[in-house]
Amino acid sequence: MKILVINSGSSSIKFKLYDMETKTALCKGLVEQIGMPNAHAKIITKNGTVLEKTGYIDDHGLGIDVMNELLFGSKVLSSLDEIDGVGHRVVQGADLFDDAVLIDDEVLETIRNLIPLAPLHNPAHLAGMKETLRIRPDIPNVAVFDTVFHQTMPKSSYMYPLPFEFYEKYKVRKYGAHGTSHQFVAKAGAKVLGIDFDKFSCITLHLGSGASISAIKDGKCIDTTMGLTPLEGLMMGTRCGSIDPAIVPFLMKNANLSGEEIDTIMNKKSGLLAIGGTNDMREIEAKMDAGDENAKLAFDMFVLRIKKYIGAYIAILGEINAIIFTAGIGENDARVREAVCSGLEIFGIRMDKDKNAAPHDEPRWVGLPETKVRIIIVPTDEELAIAEDTVRIINSCKKS
Amino acid sequence: MKILVINSGSSSIKFKLYDMETKTALCKGLVEQIGMPNAHAKIITKNGTVLEKTGYIDDHGLGIDVMNELLFGSKVLSSLDEIDGVGHRVVQGADLFDDAVLIDDEVLETIRNLIPLAPLHNPAHLAGMKETLRIRPDIPNVAVFDTVFHQTMPKSSYMYPLPFEFYEKYKVRKYGAHGTSHQFVAKAGAKVLGIDFDKFSCITLHLGSGASISAIKDGKCIDTTMGLTPLEGLMMGTRCGSIDPAIVPFLMKNANLSGEEIDTIMNKKSGLLAIGGTNDMREIEAKMDAGDENAKLAFDMFVLRIKKYIGAYIAILGEINAIIFTAGIGENDARVREAVCSGLEIFGIRMDKDKNAAPHDEPRWVGLPETKVRIIIVPTDEELAIAEDTVRIINSCKKS
Repeated sequence: MKILVINSGSSSIKFKLYDMETKTALCKGLVEQIGMPNAHAKIITKNGTVLEKTGYIDDHGLGIDVMNELLFGSKVLSSLDEIDGVGHRVVQGADLFDDAVLIDDEVLETIRNLIPLAPLHNPAHLAGMKETLRIRPDIPNVAVFDTVFHQTMPKSSYMYPLPFEFYEKYKVRKYGAHGTSHQFVAKAGAKVLGIDFDKFSCITLHLGSGASISAIKDGKCIDTTMGLTPLEGLMMGTRCGSIDPAIVPFLMKNANLSGEEIDTIMNKKSGLLAIGGTNDMREIEAKMDAGDENAKLAFDMFVLRIKKYIGAYIAILGEINAIIFTAGIGENDARVREAVCSGLEIFGIRMDKDKNAAPHDEPRWVGLPETKVRIIIVPTDEELAIAEDTVRIINSCKKS
Repeated sequence: MKILVINSGSSSIKFKLYDMETKTALCKGLVEQIGMPNAHAKIITKNGTVLEKTGYIDDHGLGIDVMNELLFGSKVLSSLDEIDGVGHRVVQGADLFDDAVLIDDEVLETIRNLIPLAPLHNPAHLAGMKETLRIRPDIPNVAVFDTVFHQTMPKSSYMYPLPFEFYEKYKVRKYGAHGTSHQFVAKAGAKVLGIDFDKFSCITLHLGSGASISAIKDGKCIDTTMGLTPLEGLMMGTRCGSIDPAIVPFLMKNANLSGEEIDTIMNKKSGLLAIGGTNDMREIEAKMDAGDENAKLAFDMFVLRIKKYIGAYIAILGEINAIIFTAGIGENDARVREAVCSGLEIFGIRMDKDKNAAPHDEPRWVGLPETKVRIIIVPTDEELAIAEDTVRIINSCKKS
């Protein structure tokens, strides 16, 4: 069974083809700068074949055509008939989807209705879906939502203390993000420890250029740091995370900025970039080692906020089995992991520094043997999780 | 030694006269609705004498005159000569004051320069100070800042991950509030446990219609929930506390509101009021008991946020001696206290429910005997703390 996973962004299409018998990726590829003169497409197959294409790629329609060309040209596919299903990543399903779903006209319409909640992402997702369906309407397409895993949050976690009409009219509530990743690494963590997922409680730390933390009790998400948008919560590469919300009107008045300008600054010019001068944690650490005080401040601020959420989530979870690090920084940055865990011994979190520092590709735990709370590192694989969800939905539709 | 404490707000002047030998209040009073036709002034003395005055009180100048009339009329004072000092509460001293200070022209000018950070409060404080100084320039006046106790926060706690220019040009950082109260109850808590304050670590919960929590390590504040403004942090009577900051531009765009309108909504129409229909926790609980689901949700949301900050602060404090409840809800609402502590046993917090439910006026602890972290209730007395600071500053000025 072969599943194609598509992550269609505003000017890019990322794709990955999986052989689901072996759960291996046969290829991965990217079409980027769609709509711009310097559009570029690339595929890398499992065997190392690389194909590239540059030029003008008008829109997502042509983007999907180019993707298909690359799939055929690199010989990972000889016909679209070989594809058993397509899984599409969707950032925002709000509270209208509590599971992945087979895409039909009604689903497309619902995703369209959610555009105000994901103005950049949902239109791009729709463009990708429509093209794959146009080319081969007979191949099942499945939408897999980033928000689904967080749909189990209790109302006290997801409601904001704002007038109810904002919730009723504009759907203002916490939805969270990175749900596919949080669920994937939590399940992998439970497996590492040999605990049934529905009895597994943990805190998952998805630390990449976007970053979020989830509180998981008995396999279900009960809180997460991202909110209505992916701005809330942690300090990130270019995002400020949670700040006094009154800062927005304060800056409008005092710095003479529009709401939109401040939104852009909070999302694209804040975080590590604003304090440490770069949004790349490796560069922050290099600058810090060279004596740059602002880089050190950025590192400390980043870590401090993570530690506070770990404490906050232990307060609402009680006993947990593990904390799980994943994504770019979470998987690869031993120094951040060590700084985060340092001082959390009071929660039963104790790191084996040597194990933590040793690079490794497999899920593993890096805590000291006697620790109450395991510290686990799990490489996330959102695309594989999307592929698995796609298979599950296709199979359940066949049965019913 | 007699000290007059003045809290001058935008349309009111609260005052309290202390005999500092016995640390008792000789009277307390209020002038309210200044500038409006139905202005009203009242004094209640220690002996039970009550004097009232209604009519039009033009401005803070006349307000101070009316206050003096009541002080003389009620016979707590026969002459202003009996006053040894006046202590003024000031909400915002930013990072320009790390202690209370004798008021002179330079101090007045600095408080004026901070008006953008406290547009409602600092002008009112200045009006009060100028009037008391005008009437009797020979009596020492001391400014006691709500922000001073939080000035020991490390940079990683007080900086926001926003472009540096916002900090440099507009002083955008975390200042906190209720500092006088946090310090007062923390000191009282240390005394209850017989621990030197500079070795005392605790979490103070000031839960009133405004609410904030501080993390105190070895007698020094290292973090607090309020931020640039008193909006950040907890859900409050009418304030939303921390929410996804992107909600502000989202609502501007989707609900067609101005930044200023959203600021007003976040400060005055959110919190318990928005969710539970009233900003009074006693009414929330009554409605909840009558089966009102939204009141129950408001209660749960209020408590959940407090619990998360307790966990967050334990993560950065490590071992603590106590958590300390104070202010309207913190001192009087046994049900909130019990709900907050329930589930925090993992931190060594265990409540004696009977002790917690017993009303009492003195500082006391209500934890179970074997608990690692003491649960203490301390009635706050910001005015007494201001009076004490006033005496300390006057004495230190005499010496130097």
